[in-house]
Amino acid sequence: PKSRFSTAEATVVLRENGKTREKTLTMGTLNPQVKAVEYAVRGPIVTKAGDIERGLQQGQKHPFTEVIKANIGDSHAMGQKPITFLRQVVALCSFPELLDSSSFPEDAKQRARRILQGCGGQSLGSYSASQGVDCIRQDVAVYIEQRDKGVPADWDNIYLTTGASDGIVSILKMLVSGQGRSRSGVMIPIPQYPLYSAAISEMEAVQINYYLDEDNCWALDINELHRAYQAAKEHCHPRVICIINPGNPTGQVQSKKCIEEVLHFAYEENLFVMSDEVYQDNVYSPDCQFHSFKKVLYEMGPEYFNTVELASFHSTSKGYSGECGFRGGYMEVLNLDLEVKAQLVKLLSIRLCPPVSGQAAMDVIVNPPLPHEPSYLQFHKEKSAVLGALAEKAQMTEQILNTVPGIKCNPVQGAMYAFPRIFIPPRAFVSLLQSLGMSPDMMYCLRLLEETGICLVPGSGFGQREGTYHFRMTILPTTEKLKVLLEKLRDFHIKFLKEYAPLEEPKRSEDDTQEALKQFR
Amino acid sequence: PKSRFSTAEATVVLRENGKTREKTLTMGTLNPQVKAVEYAVRGPIVTKAGDIERGLQQGQKHPFTEVIKANIGDSHAMGQKPITFLRQVVALCSFPELLDSSSFPEDAKQRARRILQGCGGQSLGSYSASQGVDCIRQDVAVYIEQRDKGVPADWDNIYLTTGASDGIVSILKMLVSGQGRSRSGVMIPIPQYPLYSAAISEMEAVQINYYLDEDNCWALDINELHRAYQAAKEHCHPRVICIINPGNPTGQVQSKKCIEEVLHFAYEENLFVMSDEVYQDNVYSPDCQFHSFKKVLYEMGPEYFNTVELASFHSTSKGYSGECGFRGGYMEVLNLDLEVKAQLVKLLSIRLCPPVSGQAAMDVIVNPPLPHEPSYLQFHKEKSAVLGALAEKAQMTEQILNTVPGIKCNPVQGAMYAFPRIFIPPRAFVSLLQSLGMSPDMMYCLRLLEETGICLVPGSGFGQREGTYHFRMTILPTTEKLKVLLEKLRDFHIKFLKEYAPLEEPKRSEDDTQEALKQFR
Repeated sequence: PKSRFSTAEATVVLRENGKTREKTLTMGTLNPQVKAVEYAVRGPIVTKAGDIERGLQQGQKHPFTEVIKANIGDSHAMGQKPITFLRQVVALCSFPELLDSSSFPEDAKQRARRILQGCGGQSLGSYSASQGVDCIRQDVAVYIEQRDKGVPADWDNIYLTTGASDGIVSILKMLVSGQGRSRSGVMIPIPQYPLYSAAISEMEAVQINYYLDEDNCWALDINELHRAYQAAKEHCHPRVICIINPGNPTGQVQSKKCIEEVLHFAYEENLFVMSDEVYQDNVYSPDCQFHSFKKVLYEMGPEYFNTVELASFHSTSKGYSGECGFRGGYMEVLNLDLEVKAQLVKLLSIRLCPPVSGQAAMDVIVNPPLPHEPSYLQFHKEKSAVLGALAEKAQMTEQILNTVPGIKCNPVQGAMYAFPRIFIPPRAFVSLLQSLGMSPDMMYCLRLLEETGICLVPGSGFGQREGTYHFRMTILPTTEKLKVLLEKLRDFHIKFLKEYAPLEEPKRSEDDTQEALKQFR
Repeated sequence: PKSRFSTAEATVVLRENGKTREKTLTMGTLNPQVKAVEYAVRGPIVTKAGDIERGLQQGQKHPFTEVIKANIGDSHAMGQKPITFLRQVVALCSFPELLDSSSFPEDAKQRARRILQGCGGQSLGSYSASQGVDCIRQDVAVYIEQRDKGVPADWDNIYLTTGASDGIVSILKMLVSGQGRSRSGVMIPIPQYPLYSAAISEMEAVQINYYLDEDNCWALDINELHRAYQAAKEHCHPRVICIINPGNPTGQVQSKKCIEEVLHFAYEENLFVMSDEVYQDNVYSPDCQFHSFKKVLYEMGPEYFNTVELASFHSTSKGYSGECGFRGGYMEVLNLDLEVKAQLVKLLSIRLCPPVSGQAAMDVIVNPPLPHEPSYLQFHKEKSAVLGALAEKAQMTEQILNTVPGIKCNPVQGAMYAFPRIFIPPRAFVSLLQSLGMSPDMMYCLRLLEETGICLVPGSGFGQREGTYHFRMTILPTTEKLKVLLEKLRDFHIKFLKEYAPLEEPKRSEDDTQEALKQFR
């Protein structure tokens, strides 16, 4: 066949008869929307970390003996043990013969029986309805009502999802329309979790950045929302505002007042609100409390509660259970137009249903053992242990990082990450880094990985104010491993500073770090 | 805020202050690509069936006492029992304390230990790599090599997926590019499984129909491929050909010669081949055999095997296990350009990973008990029972349907469906149906549902030659229920014919039906 693409674009295959044949799918013919997508949480640094890890296993020499992955919120991979009750229920659902076993507690069996009753043929192997298993959606609604102190929740508004990501992408997909100046604009925080920028880019929507206030513990500033909105109106049609609370990668927990302001703004400007609340159980700072957007909307009165279109998202992957692999999640969607709702269900039905074992895991999270039930004590103990350790590690991470000259870390009020600012001496990137076409924070994280085995994600993967540099690290390694990580990071950073800014004297000394570490021993 | 949309488009909300406020997301502002999507397998007939089912439960009167759902390939919902070994492995992975239990066989424990070794923190709750757990991908490669009698399979080409649908959509997404006449065209069979048309429509690719030959047992005719390709070249850039083998909804099993012709055609025209082989274990006709596209490509010689870009798809949902709810699957992608491959992994990484319990289920399907292992006998017995019953029901469905005047059904050689042609008297749709803006087969299925409780999918949901009408029904109900279904369907069809074509004498009588049914008693 004759060549369809220039050889610059095409991968040319030499045929046996001496003729060439280009591949059908090449970088030249690849969907440009796919090409444009970026997702740093599993980006080049992480790929490199995997290569190094395999190298170590094969006996390659590195200046370290293990790779410490602090790039992704994957609790179990970092050693957290599953919640026993949750796994009992999933095992019972998977192999119902165990319902006759005396080694499973009655409350776990009762949950499993109820879930199986809701499944076609009483099997986890049936497709569920596209919105999810009815009784699990009902349990979600009850959970939300209790969480929100009685604000009504209708299970008809609940959709089970394949992790939160799936729900977020589905809702965004509904909202993208128009061309040119009327193309949908989506307001997202900067820094953000890169699922948002990836989905926006893939759908060719317009990304509208509103910057969180790093100097004010990454708080959302309503004036910044107005600024971003007004500027964006010139070239697109802003239709959605996304909020991540508690924040990812920033770890801040929003105040009730702040949420009210956002909702008032969304009401006035007719914006659809997407509230990513997957870290709702991960609040560590005693000064902070999780307020759901829905509850705040309710308290603003019926004019708001019956009007503002709000989708909120939750997941099995975070919180205290950390069950990422099950890909469980739900979304609650308020005030959706009825015809649009039918369209949403149609859209979801193409993928048939979310994984039913993930739905079962979600059920346990919204319907945990009650005080009078046999599994309550163990469940409560396991849950508290996980959340207590996370709270300690959140505090430790902030404090240790702040003893390092040239690193400044806001309090990790919630979620699972620190997003410290790092000062990279101008000489470092002027002389060396930019020549390689790499962002300075990417080069920083790459060197950190190569020299210490620590795998973090560069701030540029989440977005940051121009001229500022950060990295995201999880607080998920065990306390012991986290200490090692923080000390190695400190040493690396000081060495890095000395190399590129030898004349500047570090303001804080190693003694500070050791002093700070003491309290966590 | 001032109104942004005309009231014809917008859902207007009356505010308390008397002003109106339109919703942000309305049928007028909804993503038009979402609006355009259709998915009949869970379409309006199925929604109606759900309503009727709930009505029956609440005591509403209908001319029947139960809804029989033959609309979707959901084996467990229709009463098929899970394969014990598969569920044992999943339960062991979910709750590893069971590894100490003496009530689980050693081979199941060995599978579970191996899978857990491959998971971060040895937990099903960790994210896997975006391509899936390494050792499961290795097992898939070994399975493919054995299935294909030694044709080499590289586990680096294996991607675990969230059911087959997920893989199909991901590959299609990569392949869509260009504008106007250079927009990607995707060749799909008609009739087709509507995931394809839905994905094509959502991505605004160009759908190129090639018609399967109903008069020749739904075989794929190479001349029809050429016709469709040549016609499409005028207005788009055909870049992909999709094949479903065994066929859905048509149940045909492709001959080796036919597959060779398709692959030669794809080679000549530089088409990317997507081969949907989820029914590879569902072949019933003794004259037919499943040939994988990959094996045939291999046997065509290295010029083909090293050149043609081929993605093939498999799933836990079909075959003999019918584990739809776990959303497990894999794809094997051959001859993918290396840079494009990195882009595919990037795209998959945004959704993090397929459900890990589904990956575990997939592992059992590709790595079942061996003859010397303790679970072999029971596994083999269960597998044979499922496949034997399906083969019997395939034959029964075809034979009974062919005793009904005005219904003509091709042999159900494989898969899980019959797709018979129904003759709808012109009076039926001229007088009544078209006035309601409904396709005649949709109206037929709706009346069937309302009068008998049988839920089928109209042929128009899959595509059919103009002027012909069909429905898709699964062969999954139990033998007893399937008999009831077929008899009710027969009576309905004859009544329908009498109503709209009273002068035509039915050519076959009820005696034929009863005679045919006898052999299945």
